[in-house]
Amino acid sequence: MSVIDRLLAPRSVAIVGASADTAKLTGRPLVYLAKYGFTGTIYPVNPRVAEIGGHRCYADIAALPEPPDVGVVLLGADRAIEAVRGLAARGTAAAIVVASGFGESGAEGRARQEELRCAAGAMRLLGPNTIGLVNVSDRIVLSASNALVTDDIVVGNVALVSQSGGILGSILSRAQGVGLGFSKLIATGNESDLEVADFIDHLAGDDATKVIALYLEGLRKPEAFKAAVTRARTAGKFIVAFKVGRSEVGVRSAASHTGALAGSDAAYEALFRQFGVIRAERYSDLLDIPLALSAGRSLKGKRLAIITSTGGSAAVLADTAGIAGFDAPPPDEATAAKLKALAIDGATLDSNPIDVTLAGVKTETFRVILDAVTASQIYDAVAVVLGSSALREPETVGAPLRECAARSGKPVIAFVSPDAPSLVRTLNLAGVPTFAAPESCAVALAAMHGAGEAKSIEVPPVPPAASGDDVRVLPKPGPLNEAESKRLFARFGIPATREAVSAIPAEAAEAAKTFGGNVVVKILSREVLHKSEIGGVAVNVAPADVARTCEAMAARFTAATGRRPEGFLVQELVIAGVELILGLHHDAQLGATILLGMGGVTAELYRDTALRLAPLTRHDAEEMIDDLKSAPLLHGFRGRPLADVAALADAIVAFSDMVVAIGDRLAEAEINPLFVLPQGRGVVAGDGVVVVRSA
Amino acid sequence: MSVIDRLLAPRSVAIVGASADTAKLTGRPLVYLAKYGFTGTIYPVNPRVAEIGGHRCYADIAALPEPPDVGVVLLGADRAIEAVRGLAARGTAAAIVVASGFGESGAEGRARQEELRCAAGAMRLLGPNTIGLVNVSDRIVLSASNALVTDDIVVGNVALVSQSGGILGSILSRAQGVGLGFSKLIATGNESDLEVADFIDHLAGDDATKVIALYLEGLRKPEAFKAAVTRARTAGKFIVAFKVGRSEVGVRSAASHTGALAGSDAAYEALFRQFGVIRAERYSDLLDIPLALSAGRSLKGKRLAIITSTGGSAAVLADTAGIAGFDAPPPDEATAAKLKALAIDGATLDSNPIDVTLAGVKTETFRVILDAVTASQIYDAVAVVLGSSALREPETVGAPLRECAARSGKPVIAFVSPDAPSLVRTLNLAGVPTFAAPESCAVALAAMHGAGEAKSIEVPPVPPAASGDDVRVLPKPGPLNEAESKRLFARFGIPATREAVSAIPAEAAEAAKTFGGNVVVKILSREVLHKSEIGGVAVNVAPADVARTCEAMAARFTAATGRRPEGFLVQELVIAGVELILGLHHDAQLGATILLGMGGVTAELYRDTALRLAPLTRHDAEEMIDDLKSAPLLHGFRGRPLADVAALADAIVAFSDMVVAIGDRLAEAEINPLFVLPQGRGVVAGDGVVVVRSA
Repeated sequence: MSVIDRLLAPRSVAIVGASADTAKLTGRPLVYLAKYGFTGTIYPVNPRVAEIGGHRCYADIAALPEPPDVGVVLLGADRAIEAVRGLAARGTAAAIVVASGFGESGAEGRARQEELRCAAGAMRLLGPNTIGLVNVSDRIVLSASNALVTDDIVVGNVALVSQSGGILGSILSRAQGVGLGFSKLIATGNESDLEVADFIDHLAGDDATKVIALYLEGLRKPEAFKAAVTRARTAGKFIVAFKVGRSEVGVRSAASHTGALAGSDAAYEALFRQFGVIRAERYSDLLDIPLALSAGRSLKGKRLAIITSTGGSAAVLADTAGIAGFDAPPPDEATAAKLKALAIDGATLDSNPIDVTLAGVKTETFRVILDAVTASQIYDAVAVVLGSSALREPETVGAPLRECAARSGKPVIAFVSPDAPSLVRTLNLAGVPTFAAPESCAVALAAMHGAGEAKSIEVPPVPPAASGDDVRVLPKPGPLNEAESKRLFARFGIPATREAVSAIPAEAAEAAKTFGGNVVVKILSREVLHKSEIGGVAVNVAPADVARTCEAMAARFTAATGRRPEGFLVQELVIAGVELILGLHHDAQLGATILLGMGGVTAELYRDTALRLAPLTRHDAEEMIDDLKSAPLLHGFRGRPLADVAALADAIVAFSDMVVAIGDRLAEAEINPLFVLPQGRGVVAGDGVVVVRSA
Repeated sequence: MSVIDRLLAPRSVAIVGASADTAKLTGRPLVYLAKYGFTGTIYPVNPRVAEIGGHRCYADIAALPEPPDVGVVLLGADRAIEAVRGLAARGTAAAIVVASGFGESGAEGRARQEELRCAAGAMRLLGPNTIGLVNVSDRIVLSASNALVTDDIVVGNVALVSQSGGILGSILSRAQGVGLGFSKLIATGNESDLEVADFIDHLAGDDATKVIALYLEGLRKPEAFKAAVTRARTAGKFIVAFKVGRSEVGVRSAASHTGALAGSDAAYEALFRQFGVIRAERYSDLLDIPLALSAGRSLKGKRLAIITSTGGSAAVLADTAGIAGFDAPPPDEATAAKLKALAIDGATLDSNPIDVTLAGVKTETFRVILDAVTASQIYDAVAVVLGSSALREPETVGAPLRECAARSGKPVIAFVSPDAPSLVRTLNLAGVPTFAAPESCAVALAAMHGAGEAKSIEVPPVPPAASGDDVRVLPKPGPLNEAESKRLFARFGIPATREAVSAIPAEAAEAAKTFGGNVVVKILSREVLHKSEIGGVAVNVAPADVARTCEAMAARFTAATGRRPEGFLVQELVIAGVELILGLHHDAQLGATILLGMGGVTAELYRDTALRLAPLTRHDAEEMIDDLKSAPLLHGFRGRPLADVAALADAIVAFSDMVVAIGDRLAEAEINPLFVLPQGRGVVAGDGVVVVRSA
């Protein structure tokens, strides 16, 4: 039995700082344990009272008759540390620390949190600054959340792991409203020890959980997150994450909240994409997507049937679905014939939305319509629009909707157009994903479609071990010059332009003659990373002009830097090909990322780039290429030659391999431009920058 | 008294086809009139009963004792036509026709609608296919909508005009839920006569209305819409529109719903922008934006204070507001000092979000905090986050929130984090715009900020009258050649490249010598609009090579077309400058639009264009330029020279003037490329296409 098993389903719980006043936060955990029928032993710890809610009170932790599985610590920050030390000394498996005033509140708080961690020793900690957890499947509540002052929690197959207790309460409350059921609810707070990844890893093996919903402010251990998510996805779970920090304001705000470090949002986007985490873009998506996925059905394609009795709302839904890439083809002939046989006066049954009008809002009629449409092979999903008539007689349509959805294996969702929260709730509780916003329907359908794509979980490649050779080849710390940078890229399989390094102009001129045409001439220098800014690059130079060009360049270089150049680089002039940029970016939180961008000033303006975390699979590399808005330039746009996209994908993977193999010593690396030549001719690095850090 | 005045507030109403069965749709209008206390005369028309709800029934329209102001026709499509004829014959001011089966249902329906229109003669019609209207301000209901089977409608200053009756019901129901009040609710249905623009025009003069919310599927009379919207905005009303047809699926769906024609969404976007209509992007925005604007406050800047007792929800709100361009600076020293004087344990009062924690959730404390923060000059608006504690004691924070918001002139909004619809409703009814979604808060703040921008309503320019001269200059119908096209552009003030038209190669060669450098040579032809595709363009030709180039070009032209070219065009080689495209696009519904795009293949991939309806103001032209993602290329990006943006704006307006002056005869017009030269040097048309239609 793991510690997290014991934390989620303890046989005994000590409530340290329990109050007999049930109106107080410190009075709640005992109330909740009783309310949900906890069958284990409860040890309230409070020196001032003898008994709370029928449970004998203990004066201190030392007085407990046995080490509890879990200690819930309700004391303020300073006293909490002592309590944690006491629980650890008794051999408690895990403690939940509710108090705030730790890592989220400045340097003093951070020191206090470190003290707390030390006090825990081998005992595991949830929190501090957490509202606790609820094991809904097993009816065990170890929480002080206000949000639990509610009717019974709906049981379902969605686990929520939240870095904020308030958000846990908010989502729980909203879920109760729409009828979404949970298996587990866990607030991780400041994550001084146990953190999101630990719970994802645990939930991967939890049969009661099908969907893992995450509220994230920042990941403290990205590698553990990747491993846990991979395990959960391999076990068939869906993972949905809402992450704050998409704006600068949000980043600052989250940092002051739980002290989480923020990486760039683009890096998180890459993480989610590479590891199959579905991103909740809007706050409501964190309910809507789990609602859609918890039903366990998926869309094989994007053809949607919309059945309605109210034209306008169906038009809104169709429009929204259309924006999300869904099609709404008219019914096939056989289906249309079945519908027309119902002879509904004024109905429009041969187009889509299928408008049955008010005349069609009869239980038997609706049943026939739903069965016919769900049975049609041309639809991947069916959306039913419920109008104001559904308010007055919810069962007229509700009953056939539930029955037909249960009978059919096809995804059936509902959109409730008027304000009718109880109807939404009833249908969701009956297993028909039902939404009050047309945009939520589109989000839900898209998530169910993504879930249906038979995308095998690609295990990220084992990074090639850094061979002694690879590391040895790195010169002493500092920048490499262009020729050295390119030699490094070439060692990992990315070829460079044909070129010659010359110490003096005359040698460069001699070398230029061997290229069979005009050449590019560059200054060679470790000091100047942007050569063109000081006139250190000349393109399309005739071999006869090379010596003169070198001399002029050297003079400009010396004028600008006060130094003599290391030499000159003569290279072939690449005329064909599309210019890209391939580079390494270090994310403050998520580590090494690879950036692919279209080259040139216009693409820069359009921010046409794709980012992924290293290491990359070849599939990732291919996706990055497709991500570029200007990808058609590689695929023969407007009569251009097809570019060697396969070689480009190879080069991206090679670059990633280099980044992983060299590791932290690689401070900077960029190929700009990377020429992608016409098909079959590969890619060549036109220029490159590498900066090496001290070992 | 206008017809619409009488329609909205009739002294007498005939209900044609009224039923004594109140459960039936045809029974409802009488019930509603009674329920809302209609004080005028009611004439039920039904030959089968003597009396309904205490009102004497008439056997037919002819039997009515007087012509009613309004006739509500509840009969089916065919009988409705007869009823309309009867009402018109009696001199009724306006009829409301509820039946469907008209313009929305195929050719037969369209013929029936035309018949209906003829039957109405001088009488005005609302519908057919409408659920009617509700004059909420005066408590007059002329509708059969299901959605009115509700408690009393909240009275407010928002008028809703909807092309769908179902959407009217849906929005009304949702508005009741959140506490948004209405002045008027009007469903225009198929708009065989009265349409959206008529009601906007009327509401421009309605003192009870501050915000006009529109649900649109398509505009039948764009010019009337523009005029009405301009009138309403001049009268200080805000106009908010949700429009379906953003996707192909939505366009088809709307067309089958009310038979509305769809223009391109980009053209609608231009219309809304040019005429100051705030666009509701999501369905919920159609409630949220009116809710925000109905409070009558506006933001002068984008600095937001967030006050919270729950960190996570505040982080979500801050993040969302940040994405929408808002900043959340920490409190100024004086404000922070006031807050710290409260000595709230554990609170974070010197950063933003201002987290008062649960300890700060006390009525008096909250009042002091709110007053201090709203008084701070560094904030343009205040958002208060209500957490789960608000569920248990809504008044603890609710009361100070309402009072302080009322006292302060500053925009104060609230975000309710748990599921608490009644709290949302209560606060909205008290005049504090309150939302359940963080994204709604951002949308509301953005709308209130837009409302605060002192953007004067620019009356679109009176199109320059088409002088006889302008029209006469147009050659016979068909395409113009490049030189003729450019001469036309020049007449309207857009200069072209210096050029010479030559009939034969030798003449072209002679002309080329006068340009003082290399030139561009082109074939001249009315038949071939895309000259470069048949090798009809040569760039950077030395004068000595011009004759030879012309001959080769002529040979290629003849090979491709079987014709001889009309001649040759020799032009200056433009080297400096940014290349744009300026063209005319006809929108199927909204008429002539002007498209500005960045030139070149990359910009084409990024769809970097801006579209506006003709005629354009200079302000529109400047906005179009700024709309281009690549606009920095004109503004000195990466060391480029500043381009002559003023001349570009002039050229865009000139092009628009040309489009308006020539009118429908201008089938096609495009300048591609339009070179924008460095500052002070203007623009020149590098090539152009014009096609003239028969008069």
